[in-house]
Amino acid sequence: MLFIVKENHDISSLLEKIRMASASYKVVDIYGKRIVIAWPDNLVENIEDISIDAKIRVRKPYYLVSNEWKSGKTIVNVGGVEIGGSRIVVAAGPCAVEDEDILMEIAKAVKRAGASILRGGAYKPRTSPYSFQGLGEKGLKILKRVSEAVGLPVVTEVMDTRDVELVKSYADMIQIGARNSQNFTLLREVGRAKIPVLLKRGFGMTVEEWLLAAEYILSEGNGDVVLCERGIRTFEKSTRFTIDIGGMVIAKMQTHLPIAADPSHPAGNRDLVEPLALAAIVAGADMLIVEVHANPSKALSDSEQQLTVEMFEKLMKRLKAVAEAIGRSI
Amino acid sequence: MLFIVKENHDISSLLEKIRMASASYKVVDIYGKRIVIAWPDNLVENIEDISIDAKIRVRKPYYLVSNEWKSGKTIVNVGGVEIGGSRIVVAAGPCAVEDEDILMEIAKAVKRAGASILRGGAYKPRTSPYSFQGLGEKGLKILKRVSEAVGLPVVTEVMDTRDVELVKSYADMIQIGARNSQNFTLLREVGRAKIPVLLKRGFGMTVEEWLLAAEYILSEGNGDVVLCERGIRTFEKSTRFTIDIGGMVIAKMQTHLPIAADPSHPAGNRDLVEPLALAAIVAGADMLIVEVHANPSKALSDSEQQLTVEMFEKLMKRLKAVAEAIGRSI
Amino acid sequence: MLFIVKENHDISSLLEKIRMASASYKVVDIYGKRIVIAWPDNLVENIEDISIDAKIRVRKPYYLVSNEWKSGKTIVNVGGVEIGGSRIVVAAGPCAVEDEDILMEIAKAVKRAGASILRGGAYKPRTSPYSFQGLGEKGLKILKRVSEAVGLPVVTEVMDTRDVELVKSYADMIQIGARNSQNFTLLREVGRAKIPVLLKRGFGMTVEEWLLAAEYILSEGNGDVVLCERGIRTFEKSTRFTIDIGGMVIAKMQTHLPIAADPSHPAGNRDLVEPLALAAIVAGADMLIVEVHANPSKALSDSEQQLTVEMFEKLMKRLKAVAEAIGRSI
Amino acid sequence: MLFIVKENHDISSLLEKIRMASASYKVVDIYGKRIVIAWPDNLVENIEDISIDAKIRVRKPYYLVSNEWKSGKTIVNVGGVEIGGSRIVVAAGPCAVEDEDILMEIAKAVKRAGASILRGGAYKPRTSPYSFQGLGEKGLKILKRVSEAVGLPVVTEVMDTRDVELVKSYADMIQIGARNSQNFTLLREVGRAKIPVLLKRGFGMTVEEWLLAAEYILSEGNGDVVLCERGIRTFEKSTRFTIDIGGMVIAKMQTHLPIAADPSHPAGNRDLVEPLALAAIVAGADMLIVEVHANPSKALSDSEQQLTVEMFEKLMKRLKAVAEAIGRSI
Repeated sequence: MLFIVKENHDISSLLEKIRMASASYKVVDIYGKRIVIAWPDNLVENIEDISIDAKIRVRKPYYLVSNEWKSGKTIVNVGGVEIGGSRIVVAAGPCAVEDEDILMEIAKAVKRAGASILRGGAYKPRTSPYSFQGLGEKGLKILKRVSEAVGLPVVTEVMDTRDVELVKSYADMIQIGARNSQNFTLLREVGRAKIPVLLKRGFGMTVEEWLLAAEYILSEGNGDVVLCERGIRTFEKSTRFTIDIGGMVIAKMQTHLPIAADPSHPAGNRDLVEPLALAAIVAGADMLIVEVHANPSKALSDSEQQLTVEMFEKLMKRLKAVAEAIGRSI
Repeated sequence: MLFIVKENHDISSLLEKIRMASASYKVVDIYGKRIVIAWPDNLVENIEDISIDAKIRVRKPYYLVSNEWKSGKTIVNVGGVEIGGSRIVVAAGPCAVEDEDILMEIAKAVKRAGASILRGGAYKPRTSPYSFQGLGEKGLKILKRVSEAVGLPVVTEVMDTRDVELVKSYADMIQIGARNSQNFTLLREVGRAKIPVLLKRGFGMTVEEWLLAAEYILSEGNGDVVLCERGIRTFEKSTRFTIDIGGMVIAKMQTHLPIAADPSHPAGNRDLVEPLALAAIVAGADMLIVEVHANPSKALSDSEQQLTVEMFEKLMKRLKAVAEAIGRSI
Repeated sequence: MLFIVKENHDISSLLEKIRMASASYKVVDIYGKRIVIAWPDNLVENIEDISIDAKIRVRKPYYLVSNEWKSGKTIVNVGGVEIGGSRIVVAAGPCAVEDEDILMEIAKAVKRAGASILRGGAYKPRTSPYSFQGLGEKGLKILKRVSEAVGLPVVTEVMDTRDVELVKSYADMIQIGARNSQNFTLLREVGRAKIPVLLKRGFGMTVEEWLLAAEYILSEGNGDVVLCERGIRTFEKSTRFTIDIGGMVIAKMQTHLPIAADPSHPAGNRDLVEPLALAAIVAGADMLIVEVHANPSKALSDSEQQLTVEMFEKLMKRLKAVAEAIGRSI
Repeated sequence: MLFIVKENHDISSLLEKIRMASASYKVVDIYGKRIVIAWPDNLVENIEDISIDAKIRVRKPYYLVSNEWKSGKTIVNVGGVEIGGSRIVVAAGPCAVEDEDILMEIAKAVKRAGASILRGGAYKPRTSPYSFQGLGEKGLKILKRVSEAVGLPVVTEVMDTRDVELVKSYADMIQIGARNSQNFTLLREVGRAKIPVLLKRGFGMTVEEWLLAAEYILSEGNGDVVLCERGIRTFEKSTRFTIDIGGMVIAKMQTHLPIAADPSHPAGNRDLVEPLALAAIVAGADMLIVEVHANPSKALSDSEQQLTVEMFEKLMKRLKAVAEAIGRSI
């Protein structure tokens, strides 16, 4: 049960009533409101209090993430770029930050082609301990310099609770990768950090679990979450992962948060990126995050699926045409 | 290895050479050509014969289905409707044929909205023996009368080798359903029947197996096959099946055959049909097959996912806009 | 709802009452009883009739297959071999029948090692039309001669409704393979043939669908069905399929029918066959079906996973030890 | 490439040669040896040095985890209990630590029945932020007191890199849960902590990725890792997860590390725990970890799948009989 609190009202008597009912609760300040989440519903449904502006029973296991209580779509502002409005936002850049000059070249090129956020990994979650693990803080510094020089806000991944503050000091948006999507202590930490979060869906994760992972972030008072579909693991091996367009649509129907899609990781092959990106857009994605490299064959990771700059330019043209056909822009 | 035979040439010496090499072979007349398929490659690669117009080594396990030997996309003609050209074809109609008046109403409505093929099941593969199994031949007769009255060719499913000739006498295109997609004797039989085939992908079937299932049909000399993606089975249960847009793109890249998508079965809920249909189109589908019912809540099967006529009209408008954005029409 | 009919009672008034209630029904003679299955439950729950011996509401979608109405495990008798009792039955033999002498050698060896049924395919469902498809009726004749010479009943697969009677005339048990497990017309046909059936679970099929596939056979009056788990398709590729031991246990809990396991197909590698066979036995399998070949490397199909005779002898010894430890025998 | 270093030899010249070859390397002290791991193979295969005792090319992507270089099975010692020998080790206890008296009762009961390690969660990874999250350090203290009173070493989960040292001070073995199995910074941290680790397989993780996750731990010099299969996510929903017995066998074939199985989480229902536990044992598991609760219906988490003490006693008797049948003990 959500109790929306009247502005500037004291909640001590409300909390006392919840405790008397032997119910659990959490107080969250989010979207300019104070909300008392109390559960289970049956213990608190008859509670009345002067401080209550509205009492809303959410039927889903995720409360704050659900659109049952919040009307209208949430807009997430990343360094001035609005995600969730009628304009579709494209983030682009290399899989990993490798070199400042190369990143500068890529950043300029993707901006010119229409991207409005720069992506790039400084901390890379790699299956093998012997693969390139990213440049760490050095990579963050490069990202920051390129970001400022080119004028694109930056999204980058964090993998360790101990690194959240550091990454926040360099980035405009923090990415939680697929392998950490149920790393609950990390989710809480980025919730507390109050920075926009791009939350990838784990490749073995249901849509409901994905929304509950977002609930971990919102329940710490951080409402700036974008949910990113990036493919699930299935028996089919002709693609690297199976992009779950249907699951993405279901997520969009359940939440007020913006939805993103990553067409690069499920593709595993650059020729598939364009059709998957177009499919995600017409199915309702508010944002795309695409891997682009100046020279993909020399990339230290994901060399197979990063687009060349030329391919990205062509993709942006087709995205624009399709976005207009569904009444949106890029 | 494919040996394309020169027109009007005798192949007896070629076949003798293949037999002498202890290789296997099959002679197929397809797409206006006579082709001798011989395997394994290493036993026949040095064979030369006066009858050979071209010798093509296909690297895929499916030979005739592969686009390694046949340039250009194959156009499948279904009662005058061309599938595989720049125009996207929409087949629509109820899950099952239930009543002539209702079918007539639906057929007129979907034609008015822009559909060019009528779908409807007379033989229904149902999970339970106690569910409605379709009207059988009575359903075929209804389909035929409505088809002629309204002027739409018909696609309908066959489930038994013994029914192929009967269904062929009423239908313009035969559908092989997901549960029979590796019913190899049925595949051979529709291959021999020389009627256009809509081959659904099984929900537990890889893309490669799907293309090999089509090879069963082509290897009997029937080149009029349309491959239809309809969702695979995964751990995600918020949708009925997971439409595999990536797998559909891979299939399109490997074959010269037209590709279709069925957005109704993976949706399992009519609100998902539109986004999935749009996604399939922009990713490259040449055809859509959509379940539409005049009164879905009263349908004897699949009542949750059949579109109302109004929803179908709205879908067609959005499909047209998106098709134009990618340089195609509907 | 199941109406168990009193012996030698006329059911015409019962059927008339069901029709009057606008319910559907099917009359099945099975396990020495006449049973009227009527649905939906709510329309028939108040029907009383002199012919009714017992009225049982089955909560599962599969009625006859469920153990809610039938107490005790069903024993399926295959040429004198009882499946479903305390003795675990092992069927063994080559993937495909290739040659009479080789089959004779294998049959003698597996009998000596303790197998009590001979397996071997005459009709082989192959992914590619260019793979060895089995010897057909010639293979059935070989199976029959070897069966009689060695004294082992035979189980072999049927793939086409038109072949059921022919296969029945040579075999003691008919196998429905994984790819035909939802070929409903074939299921009905083997139901009518009244011969023991080994029903493989499809690799994309849920346990509930598997039990409903068996219901197709039982609803034609054939109660001699053994359910065979053979692995499902998952993202894991280090084995050919993922044997679903848990799903097999669930099936055993829901039905009175015997349960079998095929450890060869999920293994895809002969070193895995023994651990999977042992696991299936201790989890409750009543029967195993194992691929054994005198010279696996020369087999025309499944050469990787067929056991040598020596490996099979060793497997039987370990199976015996484990069977005794759980209070059963082999 | 693994270079096993001679005892007490200086490796500076070897490392210099590797650097000169432009190869990467890592020096690991493990199993009483110093090992220099260098890659890629082709750059270092011709390197010779006085310090090299053996040079081993491992063909798998996981080097230290592979049994290509280390003969014999590794024994992991947890508070005096040896995992990986002929005796099968059973860890048992509640899902979560809730109360000291209850835990004491459970611990005594499972010890009496034959368990040799106590399990219990103080930090619980829960899908929802509103579910019971464990008692944290208070739970660790309870575990420690019960462990000492009853005389059973303890295994418990850690979820945050910042908690590793704290958990180590209370526990004998650290568990990495399925949701953190690719939390690479946590894997490195438990690698550095040099405490035995029970590494659960993620439910969306391949066997190869699981072994590579273990490699993260070993590459920090911690060789005391037990690999625990606990079920993967598949389309089948009659069980909570699908225990992958075949994948477990493959892992056992590839590594020298002991293998465990958790039959409780895939079961999701206490009646399935026994057959899955028996299946895991006969397929080769060296350890089982089983959820047992004095009063499962009152448990704050996983109440459906925890065994009662009576069920656990019965399970232990059947496990003993089966273990003996395969030449092992419990």
